[in-house]
Amino acid sequence: MITSTDLAYMAEAVQLAKRGQYTTTPNPNVGCVIVKNQQIIGKGWHKKAGTGHAEVNALANLTKAASSGATAYVTLEPCSHYGRTPPCALRLVEAGVSRVVVGMLDTNPQVSGNGIKILEEAGIEVEVGVLEAECRALNPGFFSIMERQRPFVQIKLAASLDGKTALHNGESKWITGPAARADVQTYRAKASAILTSASTVLQDDASMNVRQEQLNFNYPLDETNTNIRQPHVVVLDGRARLKPEVATSLKLFNTGAHVILIQNKNSEYSEQAFSEKGFDQVTVEKLEYDPTSGFDLNDVMSVCTQLQFNTVWVEAGGRLAASFIHEKIADELIVYIAPKIMGQGGFDVIPLGPFSEMNQTVSLTTKDMRQVGEDIRLTYTLSNKND
Amino acid sequence: MITSTDLAYMAEAVQLAKRGQYTTTPNPNVGCVIVKNQQIIGKGWHKKAGTGHAEVNALANLTKAASSGATAYVTLEPCSHYGRTPPCALRLVEAGVSRVVVGMLDTNPQVSGNGIKILEEAGIEVEVGVLEAECRALNPGFFSIMERQRPFVQIKLAASLDGKTALHNGESKWITGPAARADVQTYRAKASAILTSASTVLQDDASMNVRQEQLNFNYPLDETNTNIRQPHVVVLDGRARLKPEVATSLKLFNTGAHVILIQNKNSEYSEQAFSEKGFDQVTVEKLEYDPTSGFDLNDVMSVCTQLQFNTVWVEAGGRLAASFIHEKIADELIVYIAPKIMGQGGFDVIPLGPFSEMNQTVSLTTKDMRQVGEDIRLTYTLSNKND
Repeated sequence: MITSTDLAYMAEAVQLAKRGQYTTTPNPNVGCVIVKNQQIIGKGWHKKAGTGHAEVNALANLTKAASSGATAYVTLEPCSHYGRTPPCALRLVEAGVSRVVVGMLDTNPQVSGNGIKILEEAGIEVEVGVLEAECRALNPGFFSIMERQRPFVQIKLAASLDGKTALHNGESKWITGPAARADVQTYRAKASAILTSASTVLQDDASMNVRQEQLNFNYPLDETNTNIRQPHVVVLDGRARLKPEVATSLKLFNTGAHVILIQNKNSEYSEQAFSEKGFDQVTVEKLEYDPTSGFDLNDVMSVCTQLQFNTVWVEAGGRLAASFIHEKIADELIVYIAPKIMGQGGFDVIPLGPFSEMNQTVSLTTKDMRQVGEDIRLTYTLSNKND
Repeated sequence: MITSTDLAYMAEAVQLAKRGQYTTTPNPNVGCVIVKNQQIIGKGWHKKAGTGHAEVNALANLTKAASSGATAYVTLEPCSHYGRTPPCALRLVEAGVSRVVVGMLDTNPQVSGNGIKILEEAGIEVEVGVLEAECRALNPGFFSIMERQRPFVQIKLAASLDGKTALHNGESKWITGPAARADVQTYRAKASAILTSASTVLQDDASMNVRQEQLNFNYPLDETNTNIRQPHVVVLDGRARLKPEVATSLKLFNTGAHVILIQNKNSEYSEQAFSEKGFDQVTVEKLEYDPTSGFDLNDVMSVCTQLQFNTVWVEAGGRLAASFIHEKIADELIVYIAPKIMGQGGFDVIPLGPFSEMNQTVSLTTKDMRQVGEDIRLTYTLSNKND
């Protein structure tokens, strides 16, 4: 039976899981709390692929005598397979816990239920499905890859109240204020990869990196590694404009981030060419490219999936955003609305259409709204072909 | 000395004042609480021009023995002049109160301080300036007329997330949802007058009236008059298209509202022509009109001021909204953003500009944001020439 106390401990486990949100990719965020005699005796969360899972970390400082008879709360079904670490389900059995409360089952059909089975066969009482929505929300990208074989795609846009991203002559700096720009940093930091276009990189000399000092942490970073992870940066570069010889002068190539250049099949540039210029962190992927319609974004998503990019944060111009929406592979729109009227003739924030009937327009679902400095951040979800 | 108890009683008076918000125009909303021995013994608010002021209503059921020695809390300085009712300051003296706490002074320079003077000369202890901002916010229109000799102008707009009000072919019904449309009703009901254009009236057969069943009251209406007041409707009709003979077929002329048609100087139509068709509630005002630039909105505001329209709610197309903003006579923008992408080529929500430099764009200040059904309502304030 699930009690309100169970909910409270699971809520604590959810909070712990979030501490890994900037570092665990491609692994999921998982939190764990060990409780005995109404006291929390162990806390853990997964920090980084290759290091201890949440359950292992929560039990790390407990003797078997201490954990024996305890209840473990874990946001995701304990794993049952031998990977880089032994299965967590076995670790819980070994620790002698008498009850395990699980937020949600693993959604990978190949392993779903196996962790529970190990626990139950050891005579442990198991409850599944506590704060399930909250537990699921910890890992939209991880579950997207598991369930849809493609990343969770978030699109960032910034516009004036009248839906413009630039004046008719291209002038645009700065639409949003410093608080909104700092807020963008937290999304970048959470994403497995940032996806942008060669135009954005060349026009703005965008570094697309995460500046740790702009992130608001309300909990300590992993003590063993205080440097924030730099997300991978995927650049759509159909015309192969980001040549090895210009890399030196571009911030993008000088932040230490892994850059994935997606170029057309005929591009003459190779990873070796970048390596020879001193850029070892560049991957070149070559895909079919049509000068009019660009890349097939489904191909681009396949590259991201192969690279285990759970969450992709798209930060480019309105045209690319419109393509993602048109192709129905965008999951969330995050739109910063600046308190400005930029006037007619400017660049449209989402140049879809033109449409001739209202039923051709794109419907969104409002998920969240809040004020960020002087700007407003609106978050919408989109229904799409994989739902 | 002002105490926290004073703040609490004044907050009660502010709440009472709001009960008149749909009916008092052109008078201000005022609330009053009479307190004796830490008990509220009288409550009143102003309901309607020509009926009792807040203080008179609060004292109505109290004998002199009851009110003697009490404290009166009133959101606005008690009046000192003989109008349709005797001065409230004298009424308070007559009631024998020993202390009066006043939210804010009357801002009319001709009378400001006179009410206080009457009270003080009668030996009553007076405190001024308690919850002043809240008291002021009760009457933006009343104070605008007093201080700037023009109405407080609110502009309503509805657009998609990408800043469009219609598709390229004019198709637009419905952008926002039923909750937003009901929300608009409360703004209409609070306004002294609604200002619109002949195009809006003809295109949409807009009635611009208030439908009482769509208003959310969390307090009883004036018991003596359960019918809601219909705001006046001002229609900019430069080309005199709202002829007496078409009035019969238009909802606008059939709701019982007073309609003020603003036509060009050469218009052949008169109030008598409307009256002959059975429309007694039509006023025709003739102003200079330029077929290209339209009316001078300052002239239009003068008409509204003469008619004692404290608050004007502008509900028309984006072009008129843009003119008000351009002329710097808009005080608030209320924008409903629908969760839709309407696409390029559509009608811009605020067709200002085009601008060539960012410093030409219009800066707004975010005042409020909230979700209204599926839509989002953003409220902005504009700085303008009368500030």
